[in-house]
Amino acid sequence: MRISAKDIDQNLELVRRQSPLVHNITNYVVMNLTANALLAVGASPVMAHAREEVEDMVNIASALVINIGTLSAPWIASMKKAARKAQKKGIPIIYDPVGAGATPFRTRTIRTLIQTVPPAIVRGNASEIIAIADDACKTKGVDSAAAAENALDSARWLSEKYGCVVCVSGATDYIIDKNGMVMIKNGHALMPKVTGLGCTATALCGAFAAVNPNYFATTTAAMAVMGIAGEIAAEKAKGPASMQVEFLDALFNMKGEEIKKRLKIS
Amino acid sequence: MRISAKDIDQNLELVRRQSPLVHNITNYVVMNLTANALLAVGASPVMAHAREEVEDMVNIASALVINIGTLSAPWIASMKKAARKAQKKGIPIIYDPVGAGATPFRTRTIRTLIQTVPPAIVRGNASEIIAIADDACKTKGVDSAAAAENALDSARWLSEKYGCVVCVSGATDYIIDKNGMVMIKNGHALMPKVTGLGCTATALCGAFAAVNPNYFATTTAAMAVMGIAGEIAAEKAKGPASMQVEFLDALFNMKGEEIKKRLKIS
Amino acid sequence: MRISAKDIDQNLELVRRQSPLVHNITNYVVMNLTANALLAVGASPVMAHAREEVEDMVNIASALVINIGTLSAPWIASMKKAARKAQKKGIPIIYDPVGAGATPFRTRTIRTLIQTVPPAIVRGNASEIIAIADDACKTKGVDSAAAAENALDSARWLSEKYGCVVCVSGATDYIIDKNGMVMIKNGHALMPKVTGLGCTATALCGAFAAVNPNYFATTTAAMAVMGIAGEIAAEKAKGPASMQVEFLDALFNMKGEEIKKRLKIS
Repeated sequence: MRISAKDIDQNLELVRRQSPLVHNITNYVVMNLTANALLAVGASPVMAHAREEVEDMVNIASALVINIGTLSAPWIASMKKAARKAQKKGIPIIYDPVGAGATPFRTRTIRTLIQTVPPAIVRGNASEIIAIADDACKTKGVDSAAAAENALDSARWLSEKYGCVVCVSGATDYIIDKNGMVMIKNGHALMPKVTGLGCTATALCGAFAAVNPNYFATTTAAMAVMGIAGEIAAEKAKGPASMQVEFLDALFNMKGEEIKKRLKIS
Repeated sequence: MRISAKDIDQNLELVRRQSPLVHNITNYVVMNLTANALLAVGASPVMAHAREEVEDMVNIASALVINIGTLSAPWIASMKKAARKAQKKGIPIIYDPVGAGATPFRTRTIRTLIQTVPPAIVRGNASEIIAIADDACKTKGVDSAAAAENALDSARWLSEKYGCVVCVSGATDYIIDKNGMVMIKNGHALMPKVTGLGCTATALCGAFAAVNPNYFATTTAAMAVMGIAGEIAAEKAKGPASMQVEFLDALFNMKGEEIKKRLKIS
Repeated sequence: MRISAKDIDQNLELVRRQSPLVHNITNYVVMNLTANALLAVGASPVMAHAREEVEDMVNIASALVINIGTLSAPWIASMKKAARKAQKKGIPIIYDPVGAGATPFRTRTIRTLIQTVPPAIVRGNASEIIAIADDACKTKGVDSAAAAENALDSARWLSEKYGCVVCVSGATDYIIDKNGMVMIKNGHALMPKVTGLGCTATALCGAFAAVNPNYFATTTAAMAVMGIAGEIAAEKAKGPASMQVEFLDALFNMKGEEIKKRLKIS
């Protein structure tokens, strides 16, 4: 599949025009950044985790993003309940396996979620994707930097088994499904120094999937927009905190010509 | 009631001089911003939600702010306990009905809270205020943009029934109680692009109410200071993230002459 | 013990080279800032609080930071479980007694934690340190500004009883253990206007303790680096929000010559 800068821009414009409600059940560390990133890209964020309301919130949402970064038992129960409702309603579910492989609890939880309700998209770093697929993998914490290349077999296996798009993000982002693979080489080395930009990427995958059922194209668009915003931000940033500020501003101000000028896709 | 720029500045000066302790039981998304905004305006923030300590914390606080943005059952129990203690102690209670109308759980929770312990002030957007008053109202998520004007009847009903000040915020902020209505037309279109500025407004309503029992005047002052800080910030901001930084800095540096120069009240 | 700018820089370089995984069980308000500060200083942060995984996370971590800023019963149980595992494994435990003295719940919790599993380091402001040691002390909220000097007896008592390093932070930071006391006079008056910089200091104490078992030297290094980053930031900041951004950028860019030029130690 060939995805152009114009396709990416059109997906971004759809997000801005439709402002889809994205329901997030995510971790405490990134909630504020996630909400701000969804607003910056043009979507409408909501966070809700209570078992009493997750189904009602899914019912008015256009995508469900589940992130396991600060798990606990009641939240897992709500994640399952929300995911089942999203499946029934037919809206895309996006999983972020934060820290999979770091503890058996996380690995077990994300595997059970994926088996119970297969997602539209999974986005993680290499060690997380490997951990979902492979018992033998050990990761170090949540920002482990195993080379993305090592996770491609795991990603293909996951994509085939569950019929979903898998994105392995890193210096190069790989977007994989049954039809093939795309690589995005945008982004900047300062990005992993800002906590939660991986989680942000997953939330953007949710916003883009909410407006277009071609999840391979929308995941590619979301990851390209992330990387390009990161590049623009890094040109102005003096460190990781100004990087975060510049990143969100760049996301908000993203223009089609920037995408065209900077996109590194293959 | 006539409220001047000088009145607003005097209320702000009271907050800065007394640095009241504001106890917040609020949502995960905005806790950090809320704490920073309370510090910037001169107040002293504390967050505490455990049933074991909410009464003791209320006991040393000068205002209690309750925000239902990321509810769960144990938090609701603590909100009720804290509100009852605040009522008994006689400190102002301020409710923020985040997402009322989006799910029955939220609508039911905020209604029960208001009925159980009537507040000094309720601040919400139009759809939230309508949802508290009217079963027929449906909102879309938590940042729904029903025109504030449509919520005035609901706001008046709420104000009369519970004897409280109601603020419907939007492009124009309406502050309503039994004695009348004030409109603030300060603010900027970038403000809703920063997550949690509504919640911030509610927290500031708490800080101002903590230092002056004229809650109509203090709510007006808090909303005017919010709007003016937003205007100053927008003149320097390049997007929503620099907007948030500039907003907090403007709040911290707010001068009486800025209030005088910019205030749009009627 | 004599600690030089060169010692401090060498400890910082160790953190950057080893990038230790620091496991935080901390409060909701500061999680994002804590993670960003740990990344900025070169460490690797993880947040995990579920009883199902805290022991496994401690097992891959090099330090455990426990902060009681937004307590609840399930979190306390996880804190104890994690602390016991850290003790068994032999990695340093660092406690931040946020709001000790403000409510009996907090005072009781931190005392029980310290008695059950004595830490390597305790860092708090004066009223918190006094509250741990003394039933008669009353604090006002979580950012109370009792002069640090008043807490030195409590700090010495605490250090002797539990064989730990105690840091009383304020305009002057006091680092105390059985071998003596060091004072750091770096820092800036804008720092207490940014929520969570105290919690950040504690997290940095964790990062430094993770790479060097001389906890007196590492605590001194962490507090000096905090204060110097605050000074550099304050020269560029226009208010508390730009202060936070500049602080993290300064932490990330900290050079040995800045430490040498600015260090005020005695």
